[in-house]
Amino acid sequence: MRKTSIRKYLKPALLAAVVAVAPAWAQFAKPESAVEYRQSAFTLMGNHMGRIKGQLDYGRPNLELIRSSAALVDVLKTLPFEAFVEGSADVGDTAAKPEIWTERDKFDKLAKAMQDKVTQLNVVARSGDINAIRAAFGDTGKACKNCHDDYKKKR
Amino acid sequence: MRKTSIRKYLKPALLAAVVAVAPAWAQFAKPESAVEYRQSAFTLMGNHMGRIKGQLDYGRPNLELIRSSAALVDVLKTLPFEAFVEGSADVGDTAAKPEIWTERDKFDKLAKAMQDKVTQLNVVARSGDINAIRAAFGDTGKACKNCHDDYKKKR
Repeated sequence: MRKTSIRKYLKPALLAAVVAVAPAWAQFAKPESAVEYRQSAFTLMGNHMGRIKGQLDYGRPNLELIRSSAALVDVLKTLPFEAFVEGSADVGDTAAKPEIWTERDKFDKLAKAMQDKVTQLNVVARSGDINAIRAAFGDTGKACKNCHDDYKKKR
Repeated sequence: MRKTSIRKYLKPALLAAVVAVAPAWAQFAKPESAVEYRQSAFTLMGNHMGRIKGQLDYGRPNLELIRSSAALVDVLKTLPFEAFVEGSADVGDTAAKPEIWTERDKFDKLAKAMQDKVTQLNVVARSGDINAIRAAFGDTGKACKNCHDDYKKKR
């Protein structure tokens, strides 16, 4: 942890002040850790979006599986965005385009749009109306893609 | 997704039966995806355990930050174990020792022990008693380490 490496040089009270003004940085040991963190959250979100799709596409959708995946994606939806910190634009195997850091308002707006759709998907999943779930799932997928189109490198 | 590749060969009703008897496999497109999934869950869990440690080690612990991290770890605690599926023992950059697949009962017992400690940490975090949180956090860390000692390759 980055905090460990600087603790020798700072008294605890001063360190507490540093942490208070720089919370985003304090969460990650180094820029690579931020990349790994956001990729991890996206991996879990993508996997569970895939599970929901699997339920909607084949046979009889299992509502409980859809609900648990939608609830998990809802919990995870803000996590990646803690980790697009300064200094992590061109690090490790990141797929993040550098424009994220120069067009932050637009990026944040797309992130927020996705989060709103995920919130809605989770609400609708609890309602149990499969047609409504299908529509909300489609909207969520589009919101993911909107941001990927502009800010995720093609591999 | 693996389901997509086999859908051509199976009628939907039969596919639904296959999914019902093999749910673990059905979640992952390929063994590498299972490795990525469990690593992602562990990465988020480790990061948030680190955040709790940061709060407990320095200055005045922020109870809200401890609570949100403990709640997230609690949500994530079972996820990695969906992904130690057959065929993913020696895949990609996995740190999982092959003994996981030959000593499954022992591995599952250590996983369960960790999950119980995480449950307790989350309960205690909500109570707000910092000394109790400190003890539960220590127990949780030990439960993580117990499993890593036996089943995680040293890097």
